[in-house]
This record gives sequence, C-alpha cells and structure tokens, in this order.
Amino acid sequence: MKILFDRPIISGEKKYIVIENDIITYIGTDRPEGDFDRIISGDRKMMMPGLYNCHTHVPMTLFRGYAEDLPLHEWLHEKIFPAEELLTEKSVYISSKFAIAEMIKNGVVSFTDMYSFSDKIAEASIETGIKANIGRALLCFDPNLKLKDDFRFHEAENLFKNYHNSGNGRIKIDMSIHAEYTNLFGYVKETAEYTKEIGANMHVHISETISEHNECIERNGMTPTEFFYKAGLFESPTTAAHCVHVTDSDMEIMREKGVSVAHNPVSNLKLGSGVMRLPVMLEKGINVTFGTDGCASNNTLDILKEMYIAAILHKGVNLKPDIIPVSEIIKMATENGALSQRRELCGKIEIGYKADIILLDMNDFNMIPLYDTDAALYSINSSNVCMTMADGEVLYENGEFTTIDIEKLKFDMRDICAATYNAKS
Amino acid sequence: MKILFDRPIISGEKKYIVIENDIITYIGTDRPEGDFDRIISGDRKMMMPGLYNCHTHVPMTLFRGYAEDLPLHEWLHEKIFPAEELLTEKSVYISSKFAIAEMIKNGVVSFTDMYSFSDKIAEASIETGIKANIGRALLCFDPNLKLKDDFRFHEAENLFKNYHNSGNGRIKIDMSIHAEYTNLFGYVKETAEYTKEIGANMHVHISETISEHNECIERNGMTPTEFFYKAGLFESPTTAAHCVHVTDSDMEIMREKGVSVAHNPVSNLKLGSGVMRLPVMLEKGINVTFGTDGCASNNTLDILKEMYIAAILHKGVNLKPDIIPVSEIIKMATENGALSQRRELCGKIEIGYKADIILLDMNDFNMIPLYDTDAALYSINSSNVCMTMADGEVLYENGEFTTIDIEKLKFDMRDICAATYNAKS
Repeated sequence: MKILFDRPIISGEKKYIVIENDIITYIGTDRPEGDFDRIISGDRKMMMPGLYNCHTHVPMTLFRGYAEDLPLHEWLHEKIFPAEELLTEKSVYISSKFAIAEMIKNGVVSFTDMYSFSDKIAEASIETGIKANIGRALLCFDPNLKLKDDFRFHEAENLFKNYHNSGNGRIKIDMSIHAEYTNLFGYVKETAEYTKEIGANMHVHISETISEHNECIERNGMTPTEFFYKAGLFESPTTAAHCVHVTDSDMEIMREKGVSVAHNPVSNLKLGSGVMRLPVMLEKGINVTFGTDGCASNNTLDILKEMYIAAILHKGVNLKPDIIPVSEIIKMATENGALSQRRELCGKIEIGYKADIILLDMNDFNMIPLYDTDAALYSINSSNVCMTMADGEVLYENGEFTTIDIEKLKFDMRDICAATYNAKS
Repeated sequence: MKILFDRPIISGEKKYIVIENDIITYIGTDRPEGDFDRIISGDRKMMMPGLYNCHTHVPMTLFRGYAEDLPLHEWLHEKIFPAEELLTEKSVYISSKFAIAEMIKNGVVSFTDMYSFSDKIAEASIETGIKANIGRALLCFDPNLKLKDDFRFHEAENLFKNYHNSGNGRIKIDMSIHAEYTNLFGYVKETAEYTKEIGANMHVHISETISEHNECIERNGMTPTEFFYKAGLFESPTTAAHCVHVTDSDMEIMREKGVSVAHNPVSNLKLGSGVMRLPVMLEKGINVTFGTDGCASNNTLDILKEMYIAAILHKGVNLKPDIIPVSEIIKMATENGALSQRRELCGKIEIGYKADIILLDMNDFNMIPLYDTDAALYSINSSNVCMTMADGEVLYENGEFTTIDIEKLKFDMRDICAATYNAKS
C-alpha cells in the first residue's frame, strides 16, 4: 500500500508525504514520481504526528459524568469503587472499544492503560488498530501474599504471555503497580524484579494528591518516588502518572533513572489534586508526556484538550506567559509519548518513522486566520481532527471509522450503562 | 411564528417547549395543542439557555495566533498595538462578523464588546441577529482634555444615539472606560456622570494584572476598584472584566454597588495574569459571569470552554473538588450574563422569557453515557452545539447559518488577514 498526502501544511510548509505500508518514505516540496494506491488531499489541512495518551483507564468511559462535584474520598469510596464492583468482561470490552473510538476520533494513535479485565482491553485495541501499552493494575494489602500466589499477578503474567507484541506489534504489555498506598514494599520489589526479567515497561501512579504523598512519608519515612526507587521499580522503563506533589529531589531521581512522567492536567484540576510543576520538570530534562486519566475524572479522552490546558495553565499559575513554548507542548504529546511507551521510530513525521499521523481541518472558524501552525494549538480542538492513521492504516476519516461499527458500539454502550448503572441516555 | 421543540432534555427531563415569536410560552410534559409553524425534534438533544460572552473585543479575531508565547509588554507593544494601527472600517466589520459567526456556532446569544470602530461592530451584529452590548473604548492620557473635545467620546456618544436599542432591541450601547492605567480621574468622573445621565451600562477592565493593580495604588493611593468607585463609575450598572487581583475590600465595594464581574479564565491563564478568586466572589454574592476576552489572548470565542475551564480550574488551585457546583457555572454563563447586560427576562428557560436557546447533540461520543445533564458540562464542547436561537429566531442549525453567508465571510476574512497581516491561510 502506497499513499501520497498531497501537500498538507506540516510545520508551516506545504509538503508531499509518502507512506509505504506502515513507514514514512518521503517528505518534500517536489511531487514524488510513481503510482499511488491512494492520494489524500492536504488542501486546508494541517498534518501532525499522532497523539499519545500515556495514562488512562479506558473502561472508565462507563463512568463519564457518573459522580461529580464530590470530595475525593466520597467520590472514590461511595461512587467509583462500588461501580467498579459491577464490572464484567462484556462491559469492559464495550467501554474500552468505545473509549478507543473516542480517542481515534480525537487524534490519539496510542494509549497506555492500567486497569482490570485487561485482556478485554487488549482485544478491543487489536480490533480497532490503535496502538496500546496495556497493564493489569497490581495491588497488594496482605503482607503474607507472595507474588506467585496472587491472582492479579497471574492475570498480568498471562496478559504478557498472550498479548505482548500482538496486533502486528501495536500492542505492548506493561507491568502496572497501582500505587504506593495500595501496595507493600516486598510485593513491589518482587514485581520490579519480574518486570526487569521479562523486559517489560512499568506504569505507576505517583504523588497524585498531597495526602497520598504525605501519608507515604509517614508510613515509610520516604516519598512515593523514593519508595519505588528503593524497591527497584525504576530499573525497568517507567511511566509515572500525575506526580503533582513530587519534590525536587524526587525529580532528580526521575531524571537519573529516565522515568517518564504522564501529566494529567485536567484530572488533577477536576479532582482538586493540584497543579504539577511542569516547568521545573522540563527544565530538569525529565521526559514528560500527557495522559487523560479515566473518564470518571476528566470526562473526555482528548489529548488536544490536555495539551491546550497545559499550555495555558502553567503560564497562568506561574504568572509568566512565555514559560513553555507551544512547540514543547506538541513534542510532549508526540515524541515524548513514544519514548514513554518505548516505541522506536514513532512520534515524529520523519523518513523511516512509523506512519502515525493525523490531519486537522484548517477550514473551521477556530483555525482562521492561520499565522503559525504550532500556535494553532491555542485554538485547535478535537473536532478539527479529520483523519487518524496508525502504522499507515487510516482508522478514521471525515467522521467515518474504518475498523469500528460505531452505531452498534454507541447502542451497546448506552445499553450496558443503562442496564448496569441506570444511565439516562 | 410558533415553534414547538419536541421533547429535548431540559434540566434532566424530556419536555415540550413552545416559542411564540420571541417568547417562551409553554414548558411541560404534555404535548401542547394547536398548530405550529415548525416542530424541532429534541431527540437526543439537550436544551440550555443561550450563552453570554460578557467581555470581548470581537475584531481581534484578526489576531488569532498572531503573537504567541511572548512576555506581556512585548506582546502588547511590539505586536498587538502596531497591528491595531492598521485597523480599518472594513477589517473591523469583516472580523466582527466572523467573530459573531463563531460565537453563534458556539452557542453564544449575546456578547459585550469594547473596542474602536464600534459602529461597524453594531452593524455586523444587527445583520446576524445576535444580541450585543457594544461600547467604544475610552482612553485619556491628556490632563487638559475635556470630555466634549475628545473624539473617542464623540464616537461613543454617536454610537449611543445611533444604535442604542437598535436591531429590534437586541443591540444596546454601553459606555466603556478602558481601564485605570489608560485614563485620568477627571475624565473618568465626567464619563461616569454622562453615563448615568443617559442611563447606559458601564464596561471596564479592572485589576487584570498584578502590576496594573499595584501601579494604580502607587499612582493614586487606591486600588483600581476604589479609583472607579470614587469617580462615580459604579453609579451606572457596571461590568468589570478580569478582576484577577482585586482585594477583599474591592469585592465588598463591587457587591455593594452591584458591579458584575466578567471572569475570563482562559485569557488570564494564557497571558500569565493569574487566577481570579472566583469562589470568594461567589460566596460574597457578587454577580459573576464569563468573558472570552479578544482572540489575541484566548484564541477562541467559546464560552463552553470558559465554563469548563472555570469548573475545573478553581477545584484544582484550591485543592477542593466540590468548591463550585456545576449548576453555579451554568448560571454564571446564562442568568448572570443577562443581569450583567441588564437584559430583563433573559438568560433562563422559563415561561415569559425571551427565547434565547441552544440545543446540544447528545449523540456524540463525549455525551455518552448521560447520567446527569448539568454534569454533562464536564464533557461538552462547542462542537456539540447544534442549534442557536436568539429572540425566537434560529441563527444556526446543524452546521448552517441562517443570516450569514459563511463561505463568503471565510473568504473575506482570509483575504484581509493575508493582505494586512501576512496570514498564511
């Protein structure tokens, strides 16, 4: 399959781009010779690398709008945890597929997930053609529990065996320690050793709230970052979500160990967790990317929105309008996402890279006039995404999905939300 | 003209709504008898009052993305002010109409503007059917200038004479003192007296940045709010934009004098101005509504976005997820906006109120599932708006404008931005 993109705007210039199978093979201002299976018009379109959502819990689309404006403890213990008790393989499969459709429509080509019933998330991912790093959340409250006796660990182990590098390599299986406050040191240490042994990535929540951070210090005499460092977690390539309350010395550990941070500005604001110190992390050279978190705390899976809010939020809270250039925000959502997921030759539009590409419609109001393509981020929203391609395969184009029966999926999603959680519509 | 809305969801319930000419005459669960000129399906639609944008500068759509990531002084003095020198009647007319189209598409039924060439803004508004409170920005740096000798004041005076209550009452003319740092006490006092005499509203910028606030104290021994209070500005119904750095005692003055505050969270973040203390203002009982500010500092005219960002921002910076309920945010953007503009029987969907109404499509991903209609604000975006009606007139429906030739307008907008400011597209 050989596809020609006919002069979309890319980094401010109109260029031809050629895709052969899953690889970008030409970028230039001269029209390349030869025949093409398909020519995609770039007229009034802007091309960007596909976006990465490096921290989410896709089945939580079930809980979009389910519990709002509540104190965190009440929200979790009275609403979210009881709702999660009702999860089934079927509801996880449908809601994951629904979440993936939403992400594809919003220009996301790859996501990193941590949840349960993760084999169903993997199956939904493979069917849709999206890329995903998927992990089964590991929790342990029993000091006598050995890793080899834990059903969650066995699920994670089987997930790795059955799905790692499946879907033509689009699916990777990560190990996922949920968090410090839901685990014990010995269990974490054993998991860290196993993760290193199998060569997997690690995905973990760190210092999302100030109480989580402070209670860890009370319990262990160290911060969550120090706790995980000591347990050897960072010996595998790690993505740490949230990191709102990490200290400067935590950041030094992260930088030294190459830990990637998934910044979730919307979730952190909405749950009242606070504002992560993004400018400091970037200055220290930490690889920071974006996550949406789950739909119970966002309530969308929209990386362009995370990018936009991060772009303006840190200017505002630091009273400094030039604190982070927009080009850095774009790099975070693309190149840094690929590094977080350890996907080589991904996250950039360059020759030899995987064809993970989105097109944005520059003919909508919010895109007129156009002075600078990077600066367009300040007015773009996800409704401007008009094409999403992963590994050279068009997954979404002008409102249509190529791999998903979307009307059936909407019906199934409404049906299961109404039946299980009394959704109105 | 008699229109029946056939059971959209309104405040969580499916209801029939009847519009006769410009007024809401029926709301109920029983189908009303009689014939209708038009029946609008409410299937999978949510109905809300139309939104108010109570602080903007519509011609600044010309500068969307024109100057980004710069320190405030450089942004203003090296980019925005020189660009404004090139404004013409034609460019203001086209860009205003373009801005109005964008707002209508985003569910805005009324806006409050402060700029120059304001007669052109009024003309564009009348043609489109939107409601608007329009003012000519008044600035004075010359201590010897008398109000009656000021060309800007004469433009404001003529604007009032020619356009106040025009467009079937949809257009109101406000007086607009730009700000303390661009004015002198005597000029402000004279303007305040004139404003009271003609019975107009007042629109003013107050304490947008900390330096503006502190420099006013250095110059005058009082805060901007105290300065304007002493000059008698608040003797007319006033809308004060930004108010990021007002003190508690400033807030007391505002509450006492019934000053409305236009909260511009996006602009305040993007320009690095800071975060207004919204929860404190609401607790004091100040009438707070929303504004987008101009497109040079936002970069869109999207009140649903302001609402969403305000809804999550104040939770985040106050570390309190239940600090402002979403119902309060909706009231701010509707009812409080009507009060700010002094429009009676506007801003609510109630019998006897003006038919200023929007419909939102609940069939898009971000709206599935639906548990609570108010909470849907956390996932709505402006692309969900599928109908905008002002005074009973449908201005926008399913992508089509009824009063605007949108393709011509896009062409004209691109043309003038390219010719005057070297826009790329």
